[in-house]
Amino acid sequence: MLTLHYAPRTCALASLIALEESGLGFEVKKVDLAGGAQRSPEYLAINPKGRVPVLVADRGTLTETPAILAYIAQVTPRGRLAPLDDAFAFARMQGFNSYLCSTVHVAHAHGRRGSRWSDDAAAIETMKAKVPENMAECFRLIEETMFTGPWVMGSAYSVADAYLFTIGGWLKGDGVDPARFPRVAEHRARMLQRPAVQRALAREEA
Amino acid sequence: MLTLHYAPRTCALASLIALEESGLGFEVKKVDLAGGAQRSPEYLAINPKGRVPVLVADRGTLTETPAILAYIAQVTPRGRLAPLDDAFAFARMQGFNSYLCSTVHVAHAHGRRGSRWSDDAAAIETMKAKVPENMAECFRLIEETMFTGPWVMGSAYSVADAYLFTIGGWLKGDGVDPARFPRVAEHRARMLQRPAVQRALAREEA
Ligand SMILES: N[C@@H](CCC(=O)N[C@@H](CS)C(=O)NCC(=O)O)C(=O)O
Ligand SMILES: N[C@@H](CCC(=O)N[C@@H](CS)C(=O)NCC(=O)O)C(=O)O
Repeated sequence: MLTLHYAPRTCALASLIALEESGLGFEVKKVDLAGGAQRSPEYLAINPKGRVPVLVADRGTLTETPAILAYIAQVTPRGRLAPLDDAFAFARMQGFNSYLCSTVHVAHAHGRRGSRWSDDAAAIETMKAKVPENMAECFRLIEETMFTGPWVMGSAYSVADAYLFTIGGWLKGDGVDPARFPRVAEHRARMLQRPAVQRALAREEA
Repeated sequence: MLTLHYAPRTCALASLIALEESGLGFEVKKVDLAGGAQRSPEYLAINPKGRVPVLVADRGTLTETPAILAYIAQVTPRGRLAPLDDAFAFARMQGFNSYLCSTVHVAHAHGRRGSRWSDDAAAIETMKAKVPENMAECFRLIEETMFTGPWVMGSAYSVADAYLFTIGGWLKGDGVDPARFPRVAEHRARMLQRPAVQRALAREEA
């Protein structure tokens, strides 16, 4: 059995969508980030980093969205969620996911979690101010140089689609008009029609 | 043929070590970061993100260290560089590499590339000031909760070792005494004895 520790409206949505797409059995546990549950001794025993998502499998815990997504894809029957038999195509997908994780997610985090990188309140305000510019530049690169279409990697849906959908959902709150990136916006509309995405969103709000 | 675009003393060292370990044929191209070559039209045509490393394979380019490392491991004969036949162990390794990429590398980058996240000179100074604390906390977590030993993932060497060696090499410059993390320091000494690591370091300085 798989258990996903998640919190609504975080990057954990990508893993939740991937699980809903996979057809695998799983359960979810909500972590109360606003209440600080991620820093409780109980949670730190599961994930010493104090973050979501965590996927608990029979053999132990997995953290980090790109690793969790690749794992779900690898254990999903018939490799429907990633190009598992093609090392180059798999690496292209992993490269896309790693960019979301290390650059785009990080650009976003400077708007809400600036205290990770500075102790100075005024400095943190200057980081917040730069978030719209940085997120727009990341999505310009995605729109113009990474997104293949109709899905991120081309004709086949993959876990990269779940991840792009998740982080793309932060644009408006980050002060960027999603309509500036028409191919990504169209991808978002296409994602919203998938039953697995609808189930994941409903579960988040439950 | 594989071509690695790299620059000395950057995260690209991890990919260089992995290539040296792999036994695959490859060539390297040095990118003059100090001279701004990463922002030239020629380089942006290879990697629109304007960063190193880039691995050019017959079918196209790969970016992002964790993706490049996994690719090298997957095309290396007999899977000597990653647990390729074990999805859970592979995901653990990818989770480690993703943490280095999205959290540890990013913590370090606030010391030199703060202008990515703020336009304010005083704010950038406050980011620099926090680098030693953040890097020390990352390496405390690695030392106490992630590093298995003798190699990162346990008894088998993997590309995660090349990546830890690379980012661990930044500690001193980031104002953190590596001796505070004895298991990581011992790992570093063990890495320095590997011929592939010695070749990669020599090539960097060439
Ligand atoms: N690199 C990690 C980042 C995980 C992360 O930062 N999660 C955020 C939510 S999007 C979190 O748990 N924040 C809680 C906190 O910082 O206290 C991943 O991609 O999984
Ligand atoms: N997430 C990327 C980060 C790549 C990166 O930031 N590379 C740095 C060197 S360590 C770079 O090229 N910097 C040049 C610049 O910022 O202009 C990876 O892990 O490969």
